[in-house]
Amino acid sequence: MNKSDDNLKRIRHSSAHILAQAVMSLYPDVKLAIGPAIDDGFYYDFEFPEEVKISRNDLSAIEKEMKKIISQKQIFSKSYKSIDDAIKFLDQKNQPYSKELAEDLKKSGHKKVSFYKNGDFINLCSGPHVKSSDEIKAVKLLSVAGAYWKGDERNQMLVRIYGTAFPSERALKEHLENLKKAKQNDHRKIGRQLDLFCFSDLVGPGLPLYTPKGSVIIEELQKHIEKVCRKYGFEKVMTPHIAKIGLYELSGHAEKFPEEILHVNSERYKDWAMKPVQCPHQAQIYASRPRSYRELPIRYMESNKQYRGEKPGELRGLQRVVAITVEDGHSFCRVDQVKEEVKIMVKIIKEFFESLGLWESKWVSLSVRDPNNLDKYIGKQDEWELCEKLLQEISDEMKLDAQVCEGEAAVYGPKLDFMFKDSLGRDVQIPTVQVDFASPRRFKLSYIDEEGKEQLPVMVHRAILGSYERLLVVLLEHFGGALPLWMAPVQAAILPISEKQNGYARKLLNKFKENEIRVELNNKSIPLSARIREAQLQKIPYIVIVGDHEVKDKSISVRMRDGKQRANQEIDKFIKEVQDKIARKEII
Amino acid sequence: MNKSDDNLKRIRHSSAHILAQAVMSLYPDVKLAIGPAIDDGFYYDFEFPEEVKISRNDLSAIEKEMKKIISQKQIFSKSYKSIDDAIKFLDQKNQPYSKELAEDLKKSGHKKVSFYKNGDFINLCSGPHVKSSDEIKAVKLLSVAGAYWKGDERNQMLVRIYGTAFPSERALKEHLENLKKAKQNDHRKIGRQLDLFCFSDLVGPGLPLYTPKGSVIIEELQKHIEKVCRKYGFEKVMTPHIAKIGLYELSGHAEKFPEEILHVNSERYKDWAMKPVQCPHQAQIYASRPRSYRELPIRYMESNKQYRGEKPGELRGLQRVVAITVEDGHSFCRVDQVKEEVKIMVKIIKEFFESLGLWESKWVSLSVRDPNNLDKYIGKQDEWELCEKLLQEISDEMKLDAQVCEGEAAVYGPKLDFMFKDSLGRDVQIPTVQVDFASPRRFKLSYIDEEGKEQLPVMVHRAILGSYERLLVVLLEHFGGALPLWMAPVQAAILPISEKQNGYARKLLNKFKENEIRVELNNKSIPLSARIREAQLQKIPYIVIVGDHEVKDKSISVRMRDGKQRANQEIDKFIKEVQDKIARKEII
Repeated sequence: MNKSDDNLKRIRHSSAHILAQAVMSLYPDVKLAIGPAIDDGFYYDFEFPEEVKISRNDLSAIEKEMKKIISQKQIFSKSYKSIDDAIKFLDQKNQPYSKELAEDLKKSGHKKVSFYKNGDFINLCSGPHVKSSDEIKAVKLLSVAGAYWKGDERNQMLVRIYGTAFPSERALKEHLENLKKAKQNDHRKIGRQLDLFCFSDLVGPGLPLYTPKGSVIIEELQKHIEKVCRKYGFEKVMTPHIAKIGLYELSGHAEKFPEEILHVNSERYKDWAMKPVQCPHQAQIYASRPRSYRELPIRYMESNKQYRGEKPGELRGLQRVVAITVEDGHSFCRVDQVKEEVKIMVKIIKEFFESLGLWESKWVSLSVRDPNNLDKYIGKQDEWELCEKLLQEISDEMKLDAQVCEGEAAVYGPKLDFMFKDSLGRDVQIPTVQVDFASPRRFKLSYIDEEGKEQLPVMVHRAILGSYERLLVVLLEHFGGALPLWMAPVQAAILPISEKQNGYARKLLNKFKENEIRVELNNKSIPLSARIREAQLQKIPYIVIVGDHEVKDKSISVRMRDGKQRANQEIDKFIKEVQDKIARKEII
Repeated sequence: MNKSDDNLKRIRHSSAHILAQAVMSLYPDVKLAIGPAIDDGFYYDFEFPEEVKISRNDLSAIEKEMKKIISQKQIFSKSYKSIDDAIKFLDQKNQPYSKELAEDLKKSGHKKVSFYKNGDFINLCSGPHVKSSDEIKAVKLLSVAGAYWKGDERNQMLVRIYGTAFPSERALKEHLENLKKAKQNDHRKIGRQLDLFCFSDLVGPGLPLYTPKGSVIIEELQKHIEKVCRKYGFEKVMTPHIAKIGLYELSGHAEKFPEEILHVNSERYKDWAMKPVQCPHQAQIYASRPRSYRELPIRYMESNKQYRGEKPGELRGLQRVVAITVEDGHSFCRVDQVKEEVKIMVKIIKEFFESLGLWESKWVSLSVRDPNNLDKYIGKQDEWELCEKLLQEISDEMKLDAQVCEGEAAVYGPKLDFMFKDSLGRDVQIPTVQVDFASPRRFKLSYIDEEGKEQLPVMVHRAILGSYERLLVVLLEHFGGALPLWMAPVQAAILPISEKQNGYARKLLNKFKENEIRVELNNKSIPLSARIREAQLQKIPYIVIVGDHEVKDKSISVRMRDGKQRANQEIDKFIKEVQDKIARKEII
């Protein structure tokens, strides 16, 4: 999260406390679980007494109670208890979930913990909060959902109430309007409308299947990113989706994500796993023969699926899936080449996201270690310092204005993360560049230097496009389904006014196809207006209409996606124009 | 196997018996396992007494003994025993493996079994054999290897002796010369030399990793096949590599290939499996929304990995792998469209294999049911008859001269299989077209006909390119690594004679790259002749040499892969020529 969001975070976290406080005053027997600020608001998880069924209809009464509390200008104050006193206190208050959290803190070595109090409400919390409740100028409860305690489906199902809060009524109003728009633009809705992807109960959750139209978009994106990367020396490699589990034990992923690993076994092969990342496989191609300093940097790229057993409750359309199609790549280089490699990657990121029209909305995070928790990172101190300095220099030289974000580094090295805004204004991290001294050591990679000695290469990880699924979500929602011409599954629809023009329409169809324009003929026996409406719902950039007049003139009439109409178009000239716009990746 | 090979098969199967007979006369305590004819010869598996270590060096003595037997004009005669007598007889002869085979036959319901006898040798065998041993005009033992009893690694390791036999000395000599050539052209050797793919002990057996150069070949093949298929209305889809095991239970694959299924499980997901085929996933895309008769045929294609847990002992380079990259597709159509669909597929197969220069060597199998074993097929009698008739008509109309091969049908329908010759003259089946009424029923697929009624579509399966791995084996061995220009990983190498021409060479490099020719600069500080040799070993189609003369003239000198040299070439003209050859997929 951006630093400037700190105030918003305080307002929302305090709103969550006030939500709990309001619920307790209306339902005194409720048990409190957790209530964090999230990207676009806050929530609180509750266990209500069995006889209480909370629905959307109850939200206005709770919201009213919250507003009463806010208007009382209650002061938020922090205090400390020893961990044992805290557990005893929460037990006395009959709050089993809060007590469990305190016990967890005790297990992880905490000696004392903080509480926040406002009015008659007090709970275990590390803050931060607003000073006074009236800093919350606008609050709104939004929805009710189910959520498992600690996100684990084996635990108690709780009731989660979502809300949002802002420092002004105007900002809240704007957000609610965005929300409404976002609902219309939900990628799942657009995906169904445009027939881009589907899920199947027989196949399983989190496993999207891409229809011909969805596959066109992915293929166009892939061709584009690979062309850009190839220009900068990246070469494509292809690797399988499984390996012996030992490969991920070596890389550290098996230990780090035990719940996400999908294990593979058969009568003949035991202890294999599906790959949760691409790096170990690509490292094995590097390791397949001796390398000389002269060959470096060696740059691999790959668009391929990887598999993570995400929590079933968190799967959502293409936003969170089990089968993730990632665009991943690595540069294996010498230490003295790292800076140039990172710069090349940043150039690629800029070029690619400029062509999608998204570059201007980005901000960059220079993700470094959590200074209070240095133990959780691998690698040597001096290498970390070298890399962090280097990334800072690059940010300065390339005017990225990267914001240092502590605790956001990868386990093996610092990184530059590029964040874009989704249709709700939330940060979505897509590209990333990560400098890694540790993995080459683990994989025993080497090269022979000018003096014939074995040296350790550096691995620079980079994802440009990120995952195709996540990028599709952003693009579909950003463009409301009206994708840029070059990636539109159908670029033109041909509509003969009546049966009489079917022959002419078919000739046009072939002509467009020969010129590699993705085109459909719609001569269904329904009125022209209905067929125009179909094409508009499909967000087809060009609707080509032909009647007797066009047949006679050997011309076409065109209705553009923005509603503009052009009559009497010369066919060849129009085709040339469309081809040019596609080649230039113009966003029409 | 082609019908005309029947005689060869008899000769080789009889040679296997004579091999066993010869071994028994030299090593009386040997236990006999099995000895079939195979595509390019025969083998026999033996258990030798522990103290006997058979090696290549022992083969000439065995071969000599075989030739002695052959010259005795021994007559092969068939006789029958009741199954219990057979078991008793083999037990008395102290042949535990043969006895186990007889017991297996008893379990599967056989009442009596046949034996073949020649000279003093007799064994359980269903034949057929030559009449007299002197029909074997030429025999040669080739190698010794290990093999598990019944191919199962949990069983006893046996000694397998390979040999070959022919009806003439000339045919044997030709075959041995081919063998020598094939050894030089072994795809594994070429793959290493050209750095196309690798295996990694950390990743696992049967899981090839494609280097940048190997990936180029696969990508070029894929672009080509997809372009051809797209012309005929195939659309690309993309599907994940796993599904709930229930999907393959429904399709029948889980039951049919239990040992090959790779099972997937995690803490959160149970009873998933890796896909052994693409059909069930593609059927789920068809099933994702209602279909109308107007939409049919719907044609999907996909180049994607599938996974089969093949026997570890049978994995061999790219020839047999666990991770198989298949080019698979399906047409979902009405019954009245099946014939046209199959014809379209045959047209695609012809166009694609003509462009690889392989079409002329093909023969086609019309693979029908085993008339003695109709129970093992699913689907209705009238549908089978309809399909078989239809495929015969297509073979006639398209002059395929398909040979009816009984027992070669798929479990759900008859098929046309297209066979090519590998460098050993063995049949390699690559493309296939299969008509399937049964799977749509299992998957409950449907479409709405003109009268608004639900109907069952037909699924026509087709693989054109087959598996990329198998095609790579054929192509690499067929061309001895000197791949056609359009798929060559590096199409041109630029070699400056001395350092002085480095600048000019670099300009050329960029010019070639801009014109999308895959090019490498080799200005290593080793003699020109050594660099030419490197390029030749890499089978690079064009070696571009530049010295002072070329710099002055703004020209290039070119050395072609066939040794021809061309001096004073105009750069632009040469580039245009290469581009044209690439575009025309000329086999240079």
